[in-house]
Amino acid sequence: MDILDQFFDSLKEAQGQLASENRQKKDAALGSMAEFIDARRGDILRANGIDVERARSGGMKEALVDRLSLNGKRIDDIIEGIRTVIRQEDPIGRVRAGWTLPNGLLVEQITVPLGVAAIIYESRPNVTADAVSLAYKAGCAILLRGSQAALESTRALVGALKAGLEAGGGFPGAVALADSGNRDEVDRILKARGRLDVVIPRGGGDLIRHVVDQARVPVLETGAGNCHIYVEPSADMSRAVDIIENAKIQKPGACNAVETLLVHREALPLLLPSLAARLAGKAELRCDGPSKAAAGLPPPGLILKDALPEDWETEFLDCVLAVKTVDSLDGAVTHINRYGTKHSEAILTNDLGAAEEFGRRVDAACVYTNASTRFTDGGEFGFGAELGISTQKFHARGPMGLEALTTIKYRITGQGQIRP
Amino acid sequence: MDILDQFFDSLKEAQGQLASENRQKKDAALGSMAEFIDARRGDILRANGIDVERARSGGMKEALVDRLSLNGKRIDDIIEGIRTVIRQEDPIGRVRAGWTLPNGLLVEQITVPLGVAAIIYESRPNVTADAVSLAYKAGCAILLRGSQAALESTRALVGALKAGLEAGGGFPGAVALADSGNRDEVDRILKARGRLDVVIPRGGGDLIRHVVDQARVPVLETGAGNCHIYVEPSADMSRAVDIIENAKIQKPGACNAVETLLVHREALPLLLPSLAARLAGKAELRCDGPSKAAAGLPPPGLILKDALPEDWETEFLDCVLAVKTVDSLDGAVTHINRYGTKHSEAILTNDLGAAEEFGRRVDAACVYTNASTRFTDGGEFGFGAELGISTQKFHARGPMGLEALTTIKYRITGQGQIRP
Repeated sequence: MDILDQFFDSLKEAQGQLASENRQKKDAALGSMAEFIDARRGDILRANGIDVERARSGGMKEALVDRLSLNGKRIDDIIEGIRTVIRQEDPIGRVRAGWTLPNGLLVEQITVPLGVAAIIYESRPNVTADAVSLAYKAGCAILLRGSQAALESTRALVGALKAGLEAGGGFPGAVALADSGNRDEVDRILKARGRLDVVIPRGGGDLIRHVVDQARVPVLETGAGNCHIYVEPSADMSRAVDIIENAKIQKPGACNAVETLLVHREALPLLLPSLAARLAGKAELRCDGPSKAAAGLPPPGLILKDALPEDWETEFLDCVLAVKTVDSLDGAVTHINRYGTKHSEAILTNDLGAAEEFGRRVDAACVYTNASTRFTDGGEFGFGAELGISTQKFHARGPMGLEALTTIKYRITGQGQIRP
Repeated sequence: MDILDQFFDSLKEAQGQLASENRQKKDAALGSMAEFIDARRGDILRANGIDVERARSGGMKEALVDRLSLNGKRIDDIIEGIRTVIRQEDPIGRVRAGWTLPNGLLVEQITVPLGVAAIIYESRPNVTADAVSLAYKAGCAILLRGSQAALESTRALVGALKAGLEAGGGFPGAVALADSGNRDEVDRILKARGRLDVVIPRGGGDLIRHVVDQARVPVLETGAGNCHIYVEPSADMSRAVDIIENAKIQKPGACNAVETLLVHREALPLLLPSLAARLAGKAELRCDGPSKAAAGLPPPGLILKDALPEDWETEFLDCVLAVKTVDSLDGAVTHINRYGTKHSEAILTNDLGAAEEFGRRVDAACVYTNASTRFTDGGEFGFGAELGISTQKFHARGPMGLEALTTIKYRITGQGQIRP
């Protein structure tokens, strides 16, 4: 019985105890976790510095280095995330529905913890605290398997969180870090049927594919974000330029960043010249013929290339934007439902019917009208933290907060009823 | 492009249209389905007769032949199931939650159809109508893959249902039957990532294992039911005998039938003699030492055997009941959480604290106090029909009705918001 087997057993045992813990005790333990993160911020930043240095010297892209990096502000955000989780209602023990059958049986649908969860994630260290605090409040034990790139940061954070649980009267056994670095470790987690109730992969396309392929444990997929913005001629073009710049540039490594811009043919001359001017020096455009023509002579500093077919299906995670011309809303919806990853899709328009139709027909977790796709985020939505953004079509869809870690149990109370 | 590929395409297209259909039109189409089942009941019963005859001559166990068989009453039940689905609220287009962010963005959580579902199921023909009517009302297209044993029944039912959709102004393309009988067909369905949104296996342990092993499409597992009843000394023993008989004998082939009885040591002399008398000629008991001793000399007609270790993990689906002695509620909970399949578990007691603790600690979709486990059923719960009983711990747990075929979409409406 190696360390991973021991984790499976100890997580299950701790989860059994945590499941009966009341809100006051869970919140006290969470508060103590926040305090320990605060008290140990120096250690955490030093550990993160080691990871960042190693990543840079290994040639990691800057957008990804940014995802990996912590600073004082990001530590503050982690602490504030925990505090927001504390402020939220306990998701457990709610009677969501209840009714009495004609034979007198009382049927109640009660929320209970999902159980023991595993999260397999890449580089972003704040995921560690988000996942632990959400899981704890939802009464779930959690097995963390972070990336090798963030190993030192993750160890420092988990150390602080577990120390916080210990000091705050909680169950430190409900949190475990699988950090052997063995690839085999991931596959054993994925096959641990009966020992884990769910596995949540959070990272790039390769990770998700590997998990979906290998997992025999139920998976909550958090997928890649090949997100689109579709611009209609009726849109406010000055707002459109602001929104597109924000969705592409503000954090290009994020999954809710826009990757392909779809422009109605009649909107091309209204949008492309000012967009090209705005993105000069900031982004590379990969245009189809009509949009390239509409952009005119590229302003100094703008990289303007011809789009290739594979650009439509690429999550660049970089300052690159593909641009395609469409002839109608139907063309935009068809393109999105073919190439999109069911993540976040936006229409910029002033046409009520078009906004309604786009919202209804586009198959995605989040559908925006006249706003940046960058808001798809548990923190932005008010959940305090998130486990990731589900792009599958199960019940946890979009940003996953506390609710995503609960399930229900039917409690049926009778007085001797038998089925006729 | 063979017939299965054509189905994937036509189901997706029909689902796109059905997703926007309003309740009136969906209910009209469902009403027409019910009428066609009624009008064609002769054809359906004849087709079922062929299946039943072939099953019997092939040596199928009687409990399974019973699951396969239709009669006038069961056709009435199918029709009544459709009518109950019609009476239910439309699960689509509900705003489940909504809030405005500090920046003015309106976030709404709206129910939408899960999409294109496939159901792979064994012998029971009523599943066909249940699945089609629930899927249609939930705006989902459905690919049916029934068992070879029920082939003629399923063809007759699907023919009637699709004719009903056609006549009732619905979308017959939203229903397809994969009936080539090819084993390869199942595996292609399981791998159809991107073309199916969910696959629901409904049948025995071998089917479920095969699906979980091979599927790359998200799975809603409906599992085996290794269900338990735990009897405390404080229970009303006369009720207990009624409940145990009902849970074991009324439909032994059902997944919610009890398989193992757990008896508190002090309850043994109060329960076993009268239980043995009641089950004489009806069931076989497989007892551990103390319960065998408590049963005394077996009454005429009672088959009394020694329990083997594998009996604790067996879903007999037959008139066989394993009996084990436990020393405490903790012993019962531990046994259930080890051998149970998270389906339906019951405690018979008059001790309030014990009922509460059992309900809280047992990890199962349905936890009963003083009632038969046989009530775990969409029809009994008032859902009109069910897609199966989920034994996994995702959001669709227990009997799955309309809700299980929905997911949510976040609709976010702004006035140009960008993320700072």
